[in-house]
Amino acid sequence: MPSYKAPTKDLRFVLHDVLKVDELYASLPAFEDVSPDLIDAIIEQGAKFCEDVVAPLNESGDEEGCHWSAEGVTTPAGFADAYQQYVAGGWPALAADPEHGGQGMPNALGLCMNELTGTANWAWSMYPGLSHGAIKTLEEHGSDEQKERYLTRLVSGEWTGTMCLTEPHCGTDLGLLRTKAIRNSDGSFSLHGTKIFISAGEHDMAENIVHIVIARIEGAPEGTKGISLFVVPKVNVNEDGTLGERNAVHCASIESKMGIKGSATCVMNFDGARGYLIGPENRGLNCMFTFMNAARLGTAVQGLCHAELAYQGAFNYARERLAMRSLTGPKNPDGPADPILVHPDVRRMLLTQRAIAEGSRAFLLYLAVQGDLIRAGTEEQAKQADNLMALLTPIAKAFVTELGFEAANHGVQVLGGHGYIREWGMEQIVRDARIALLYEGTTGVQAMDLIGRKILGSGGKLLMDFTAQVDAFCQQEHPAAAQAWIDQVAQYKDEWLTLSLQIGEKAMSNADEAGAASVDYLMYSGYIVLAYFWAQIASVAAQLLSDPSRSADSDYLRAKLMTAEFYFKRLLPRAQGHRLAIEGGAEPLMQMPEELFAVAQ
Amino acid sequence: MPSYKAPTKDLRFVLHDVLKVDELYASLPAFEDVSPDLIDAIIEQGAKFCEDVVAPLNESGDEEGCHWSAEGVTTPAGFADAYQQYVAGGWPALAADPEHGGQGMPNALGLCMNELTGTANWAWSMYPGLSHGAIKTLEEHGSDEQKERYLTRLVSGEWTGTMCLTEPHCGTDLGLLRTKAIRNSDGSFSLHGTKIFISAGEHDMAENIVHIVIARIEGAPEGTKGISLFVVPKVNVNEDGTLGERNAVHCASIESKMGIKGSATCVMNFDGARGYLIGPENRGLNCMFTFMNAARLGTAVQGLCHAELAYQGAFNYARERLAMRSLTGPKNPDGPADPILVHPDVRRMLLTQRAIAEGSRAFLLYLAVQGDLIRAGTEEQAKQADNLMALLTPIAKAFVTELGFEAANHGVQVLGGHGYIREWGMEQIVRDARIALLYEGTTGVQAMDLIGRKILGSGGKLLMDFTAQVDAFCQQEHPAAAQAWIDQVAQYKDEWLTLSLQIGEKAMSNADEAGAASVDYLMYSGYIVLAYFWAQIASVAAQLLSDPSRSADSDYLRAKLMTAEFYFKRLLPRAQGHRLAIEGGAEPLMQMPEELFAVAQ
Repeated sequence: MPSYKAPTKDLRFVLHDVLKVDELYASLPAFEDVSPDLIDAIIEQGAKFCEDVVAPLNESGDEEGCHWSAEGVTTPAGFADAYQQYVAGGWPALAADPEHGGQGMPNALGLCMNELTGTANWAWSMYPGLSHGAIKTLEEHGSDEQKERYLTRLVSGEWTGTMCLTEPHCGTDLGLLRTKAIRNSDGSFSLHGTKIFISAGEHDMAENIVHIVIARIEGAPEGTKGISLFVVPKVNVNEDGTLGERNAVHCASIESKMGIKGSATCVMNFDGARGYLIGPENRGLNCMFTFMNAARLGTAVQGLCHAELAYQGAFNYARERLAMRSLTGPKNPDGPADPILVHPDVRRMLLTQRAIAEGSRAFLLYLAVQGDLIRAGTEEQAKQADNLMALLTPIAKAFVTELGFEAANHGVQVLGGHGYIREWGMEQIVRDARIALLYEGTTGVQAMDLIGRKILGSGGKLLMDFTAQVDAFCQQEHPAAAQAWIDQVAQYKDEWLTLSLQIGEKAMSNADEAGAASVDYLMYSGYIVLAYFWAQIASVAAQLLSDPSRSADSDYLRAKLMTAEFYFKRLLPRAQGHRLAIEGGAEPLMQMPEELFAVAQ
Repeated sequence: MPSYKAPTKDLRFVLHDVLKVDELYASLPAFEDVSPDLIDAIIEQGAKFCEDVVAPLNESGDEEGCHWSAEGVTTPAGFADAYQQYVAGGWPALAADPEHGGQGMPNALGLCMNELTGTANWAWSMYPGLSHGAIKTLEEHGSDEQKERYLTRLVSGEWTGTMCLTEPHCGTDLGLLRTKAIRNSDGSFSLHGTKIFISAGEHDMAENIVHIVIARIEGAPEGTKGISLFVVPKVNVNEDGTLGERNAVHCASIESKMGIKGSATCVMNFDGARGYLIGPENRGLNCMFTFMNAARLGTAVQGLCHAELAYQGAFNYARERLAMRSLTGPKNPDGPADPILVHPDVRRMLLTQRAIAEGSRAFLLYLAVQGDLIRAGTEEQAKQADNLMALLTPIAKAFVTELGFEAANHGVQVLGGHGYIREWGMEQIVRDARIALLYEGTTGVQAMDLIGRKILGSGGKLLMDFTAQVDAFCQQEHPAAAQAWIDQVAQYKDEWLTLSLQIGEKAMSNADEAGAASVDYLMYSGYIVLAYFWAQIASVAAQLLSDPSRSADSDYLRAKLMTAEFYFKRLLPRAQGHRLAIEGGAEPLMQMPEELFAVAQ
C-alpha cells in the first residue's frame, strides 16, 4: 500500500486561489470568522490525523475485513480506536450546525476532510460518513425532541447513523419497498422488514446506532407516495437520554464484497423494531430528496480519493522501477535501465490520474461552496447555488467516480504484474473504487437524472444558467498561457448547448432517445465541466506565476499549467467520441427483441 | 456465478460462414480430413465438458484459492480431477502435432477449446494453457532427445509446463535477468536464481512439471544477447523415461492476488536445479520470439472469455430483475415494474458486451486460422499469414483484453449493488479479467510493439498488406443491409493509413511521439479492426438471411445485423476520441520534470 501524503498544498490552492473562498466567507455572516489561517490550520491537522492514524489501517482493514456474530459486528483491528480519536478530535462536528453542537465550519472544509479521510482509508471513512445522511435528515425534518435525543449525539460522533433504504428486491426503484410500519398506541411504530446493503449498519465503534429507515405505514398508498421516514435506534433511548433496552433491529449477516472490506455492509432485520416517524406521513422520499445532492457529492469524493491514492502509488513506483531505455536515449546511463517514468505511456497514465484528481478536487470543492451558499448565503445566492447543484451533482457523482475508477486501474497498470498482487496495495484501490459507480445511484441512474430531470425537465434552464456562468468566465481577461484553454471551453460550451437541444428534440418524439443518450451525454458533459475547472486552474496559475510574492510556488504552478495542457490535449478529445456515439441514437439499442439476447446454441 | 452456456452456434457460424474454414481446410493437405461435421462434433463435446465439468469449479476455485506448503501446492477442490478428465478426453493433444502424439487438429479448433475452457473457468484453464508455451518451445527448438523425453508427455497432458521468465526486478526488460546457468561436466547446467509470477509453477494436477527457463550462462554477454533457454523438469527424468529424483527447483510461495485465485502464481527458486540447454547458447530470447504471437493470442482470448461470461450473467439478471417503468410506457403492466432490460442504458451495456465478445471471436479465430496457414499452408500463404499475425497480434492482445475488462465491468454495473457482492459472481469476472491487461506484455508494451516494431519498423508495409486485404473486401459486392458498414470500414481504413503516416513523420524528429501516441493508436486501430470483422459478419448474415436453407437461423442472423449496427453507431465513434488524443502529441506528456510529479505539501 502506498503511504499516503495528504495534498494539503493543492487543497489550499483550490480554496484560496481558485475558488477564492476567503472573500466569499468574509461576506457571509455565518462564516465571517473562517479566516484563511483557520482553514489552513484545520487542513494541516486533518492531514496529519489521516496520514498518521487512518491511512495505516487501510491495507490491514482490507486484509482482515469485518466479523459477524449473533452478538454483532466487529470492525478490523484499529478501526474503533481510530474512530475514538476522530471523535476526541472533534472531527465529526466540524461542518455541522452549532445549534446541535457542531463547529459550524463551511461545507468546503468538511469536504476537504472527507477527501483526506477517504483517501487515507475509504472503508474506515464510511463509518463517520454514513452519519451525515442521518444528521441531515434529522436537522431538516426531525422534531425538536428527535433533534435533542439523537442529533446531538450524532454530531458529536458519540453515536453513528445509517440510511436504511434498499431491500432485496428493490434499490433504485424504492416505490417497490415492502418494509412495514405498524402504528402503536403510543404514537410510535413497529417496523417489520429486511433492508440490505446497509453500510455501518452494525459495528463496534459506538455504543448506539441511529437508523433512518424508509417504510410503508399500514394502509399507505402503493408506490413512492406511500413511503414514510422513521428513526430507529439500535438501542432505545430513555427520556433522560440514557440508553435503555436493545431495539428489535439486528444485523442478520454482512456481505462478502469485492472491496471496501473494512466497511460492514449489513443485512438488517427489523422484527417489530420501535421507530418514530420523521416528517409527515407518506412524504418520506420527498424528505430524503432534500439532501440527496449532499449524499451524492459525498460519494463523488470517492472518485477523487482513489484517483489521488492511485496516483501517489503509481508515481512512487514509476520513479524507482527500472526497465528499458528512454526512446530518446538513456536518462539514467549509469544504471542498468531507466526509471519507467521516462516512458511516454507511463507518463500518460500518471498525468491522466493527476488531471482527474486535481480537476475533480476543484470541481467538488466548488460544489461544496455552493452548499455553503445554500446554507449561509442570501436567498438569491442560495437559489442560484441550488440550481447549480441540481445540474452538476449527477455529473460529479457519476463522472468523477467513473474517472476515479479509471485512475485506479492506471495505478495497477503502471506497476505491471506487481499491480495485480495484493501486497502492493494497488489492486485494493481498484476493488474499493468499483463500488462508487454503483451506490447512491449508479452511473446510469445519475445519467437519467441529468438528462431527464435536470436538462429536459428544466427545459434547458439549469444548463443555460451554468453556461452563462461559463461564458462570463471565458469573456474575462486571462493570461496568454491559459487563453487557448479558455477558447476551447467557450467552443465546447456552445457545442454542449447544441447537442442538448438535439437530444431534447429527438426525445420529444421518442423518450428512449433520452435514455439511449444518457450515459454518453453525462460523460460528454463531465469532460466539459472538468475542462471549465482546468481552465480556471490554468488561468489562476498563470496569473500567480507572474506574482513575485508567490515565487516559492513557481514549480507547483508550472505543474498546474502542464497538467492543464495535458487535460485539454489528451483527455478532453474523448468528449468527441461520446458526442458521436450519442448521434448514433436509440434505434441500435432498442430494436433487439428480448429473445434475441439469449445465447444461441 | 452465472451458469455458463457455451456459444456453440456462434463458434460454428464464425468458422463455417464467416471465415469459411471448410473450403480452406479442404485445400490444405494437413487438414483435409477436418470435415465440417468433425468440427461441429468437437465443439459440441468440448462445450459439454466445459459446461458440466469446468464451469462448476469457477466460483469455488476463486473462493478457496490455492494452498502452499513446503511439500508443494494444492489446487482448489475439483481442479485436479477435472484436469484428469480433460487428459482422459484427449483434449490437451487436440491441436498438437501428430508427430509427438497430437491429434493434428487446426489451431482454430484449439482456440475454440481455449475459449470454452477459459470462459468456463479461466483460472483452471491456465494449467493446461501454460503447457502450450513449453510445447511450442520444445517443438521448435528442442533436440530429438528432448522432444522424446518431455514433449510427448506434455502433449498428452500427462505432465504440464511453465514459462519461467520474470524475475523480481525485471519483467518487460528481460535483458536485466540474473538467473545463472553454470555448466556441468556432463553438458547439463545448474540453474541458480529466483523467478516470479510463474503460473502453474507448482500444483497437484500432474506428476511432473516441465519448466522452460531463461537464464544467463556464466560468462555470457550482458543484456538480451546473453540469454539462453533451458528445460528444467520438476522431477528428473531417467534415460528410460521413468521419473527419477526431485530436481532442485521449488515453489517458495504463491502470490496473493486480485483474482485468478484458482491459478497458482508461484515464486520459483532454482537452487542448482539441473537444466538442459534448448537451442543455441545466448539465443534464448530469439527462440522465444518465434512463438510469442501464439502466446499473446492465447491471452487475447481471455478478453473474449470474460466479455462472454459477463454478458451471460448480466443478460440473465436484466431479464429477471424488475425496476422502474420503460420510458415509453409499461412493458410488463401486470407486474410491479418492468424488467430492467427495457431500459436503454442497460441495453447499451449488454450490447457493448456482446459486440465485444462476438466481434472478438471472429477476430481471434481469424488469427488462429492464420496460424493454421503458417503451419500447413504454402510458403506464400505462410509468409502472408505471418505478416498478418505480426501486425494484428499486439492489437488482439491489448485491445481485446482492454475491451474484455470493460465488458466485465458492465456485467457488474448491470447488476447494480448486487454486482459488487461476491455471491453473484460478477465481481469475480472483473478481478479475473484484470490480469489480462498485464501479463504477456502490458497494453503499453503491446502498443509499442505495434507502433514501433510493426508499423514504423516495417515502414508501414505490414499495415498496407492488411489494408489491401480490407480494401479488397470492401470492393466486393455486399448485401444492401451491410453496405453502410462496409463504407465506414473503407473510410476508416484510409484515415488509419493517414494517421499512421502522420505519427511516423512526427516520430522521425522525436521518438517520444511514437510512445506518446502508442496506446491511443492501438485502441484506434483495434476499433477499426473490429469494425472490419463486424462488417464481414454483417455481410455474411445479410446474405444468409436470404438463403431459404438457413431460415431456421433467421433470428440469430437478424441479431447479428442489429449488433453490427450497434457496433458501428455506438462503439466505433470512440476511435475519433483516440485519434484526436493522438493529435495532442508528445509535448503534454514529456514536458513535466520528474520532481514536479511529486505531491506538494
